[in-house]
Amino acid sequence: MSHYAPGLEGVIAGQTAICTVGREGNDLLYRGYSIVDLCAKNVPWEEVAFMLIWGGKPTPQQADQCRGMIVSHRGIPDSLKRVLESIPASATPMDVLRTGWSFLGNIHPEGAADEGEVVSRLVASGPTIIAWWYNHHRGQATRIDYPHADQGGYFLHALNGKMPSDDERRLMNTSMILYSEHAFNASTFTARVVTSTLSDMWSAIVAAVGALKGPLHGGANEEAMHLILKFKSPDDAERGVLEMLAKKEKIMGFGHRAYKVRDPRSDLIRHWAAKLAEKHRDLPYMAIAERIDQVMAREKKMFPNTDFYHAPAYYMSGIPIPLFTPIFAFARVAGWIAHIREQRAENRLIRPTEEYTGPEKREW
Amino acid sequence: MSHYAPGLEGVIAGQTAICTVGREGNDLLYRGYSIVDLCAKNVPWEEVAFMLIWGGKPTPQQADQCRGMIVSHRGIPDSLKRVLESIPASATPMDVLRTGWSFLGNIHPEGAADEGEVVSRLVASGPTIIAWWYNHHRGQATRIDYPHADQGGYFLHALNGKMPSDDERRLMNTSMILYSEHAFNASTFTARVVTSTLSDMWSAIVAAVGALKGPLHGGANEEAMHLILKFKSPDDAERGVLEMLAKKEKIMGFGHRAYKVRDPRSDLIRHWAAKLAEKHRDLPYMAIAERIDQVMAREKKMFPNTDFYHAPAYYMSGIPIPLFTPIFAFARVAGWIAHIREQRAENRLIRPTEEYTGPEKREW
Repeated sequence: MSHYAPGLEGVIAGQTAICTVGREGNDLLYRGYSIVDLCAKNVPWEEVAFMLIWGGKPTPQQADQCRGMIVSHRGIPDSLKRVLESIPASATPMDVLRTGWSFLGNIHPEGAADEGEVVSRLVASGPTIIAWWYNHHRGQATRIDYPHADQGGYFLHALNGKMPSDDERRLMNTSMILYSEHAFNASTFTARVVTSTLSDMWSAIVAAVGALKGPLHGGANEEAMHLILKFKSPDDAERGVLEMLAKKEKIMGFGHRAYKVRDPRSDLIRHWAAKLAEKHRDLPYMAIAERIDQVMAREKKMFPNTDFYHAPAYYMSGIPIPLFTPIFAFARVAGWIAHIREQRAENRLIRPTEEYTGPEKREW
Repeated sequence: MSHYAPGLEGVIAGQTAICTVGREGNDLLYRGYSIVDLCAKNVPWEEVAFMLIWGGKPTPQQADQCRGMIVSHRGIPDSLKRVLESIPASATPMDVLRTGWSFLGNIHPEGAADEGEVVSRLVASGPTIIAWWYNHHRGQATRIDYPHADQGGYFLHALNGKMPSDDERRLMNTSMILYSEHAFNASTFTARVVTSTLSDMWSAIVAAVGALKGPLHGGANEEAMHLILKFKSPDDAERGVLEMLAKKEKIMGFGHRAYKVRDPRSDLIRHWAAKLAEKHRDLPYMAIAERIDQVMAREKKMFPNTDFYHAPAYYMSGIPIPLFTPIFAFARVAGWIAHIREQRAENRLIRPTEEYTGPEKREW
């Protein structure tokens, strides 16, 4: 019987060949490939997803095939379109994505298709589900036949109906690389627990979406933007954050249990946030974000995590705040699928035990 | 850094005051109340659910109120009826339930309602969702306005359109008591992991449904019935099971990691299976089940778990096999909600760590 560790912190829950997080305090490697290397080489996210899911870098032919599979699986059945249209505009987009994928799991169940088809459908369909629901409620039609190979560019185009800029597409590709995988985080661990009962892939992904939704997990990028929008200027932000710290309020988007030194994803996404800020010199968001970062470093010695600079980057790309976390999901689905496949390859039911603190035996 | 225990077996993942499993090798207590006592006193499942969720035995007035809340929340919105009708007849009922609850979470999100209302809706709506979808595909209308206070009786009536017998209602009440709660099993643990990100109750329940679906978890009651149906007679079963054992095939519905001596739920449900068998003397299922039980005890020293005798009991009550696991979910939702509330009361993000076995750092 092991010692009780709250939140299972430091408890090894399984073996994995997919990812290492913060082994040197500030590094993140996907199957040995550093995210710094992947971003510097601008590797298409679709190839990173292939590598995560199937275990190796795709050959040029496999990369083409994989892009073709994704483009051809972006469509969704009419029945799902009707379901999405009947979800109110007031709904939380992560609940919409959860419901959309759950419904699709009934139409294309895993047993009836080969593994590659289910995987392609999961990787390809998220942006369509969200764009369709969102545009329906603002009275816009959604075109889902753009031939872009990149999921990031496709999503921006399908959502807003206009061609994204090159910088916006680079931002989206970088963002999706950074959000693809992060070892035994709460949503991935959820997917592995579900998979360990020998349930299907759709069930595991739907469960993971529910976990990612939480503000202590994927929801943090939205919280960071709400924080930035509270302030009119960098000076206003400095004053406001100092006030919040004095009141011991939580500042979203800083620190990470798994990194002792720095979150390596932060500088990579900050680069593209800064690029977009150059194009939008009238918008104060990046300057405000940088000041908050400085204040947190000075006052709390805390570093921004990946979510923080994602917030101004997405916002300046014309993405509505409630859609920030779904984009995280569009990317993380690659990591989830990789872990589901790994769990299946050497499965054992994940069933921990508990320490009882309740009443002794009594009569009803 | 703790020792690595595959499947987290024996690892304490948290504290709970809700349930003890097998502390004396063959006992199961809900907040100190033994399931043997609850079943002997024929406590209505709705009161057991109240006790699990809110922490104490209801007063007579609270019990009335709770029954009223359940009866009044069985209805589902028209939009959900249309969604259910668009899910094909070939779908897996647990996927239908997962999708139905996921959709309902968009219509009645947690933030907009008080806790009691969300809880009542979750406890009340499962049977309606399944009966509506199932009957739609066999061309039957579903009446959901039966005034029965018991969810078990309500489900049988709504599903089959005819009043269940007293024995069938007693069976259902017992079954739902036994399936209500079981500490940190895989689906409950899934709900706690999702909750630990501060996500909402619907997301946690939807995730748990996906975990319960797996054949290593809730799916076992269906597998047990498929086994029983393979055989024509007790002698045929004896021969067949011996053959399966010789081939080292897994016999579903036997043994349990958490009980060293015996699963205490088995005898309680077996009692009602035997009662129903007396009424259906022409049906061989109970005799076959008992012979399989004898063979497993003699050959493998294994005891039946709760799922095994559930199979013939449900089957003789006119419940189609694919609906066995959803009934498990209708009952277990009480335990899930209890654990979600407990996790929230003293939350910490559940985020274990992992042992890396993959490639070292390399260039793309």
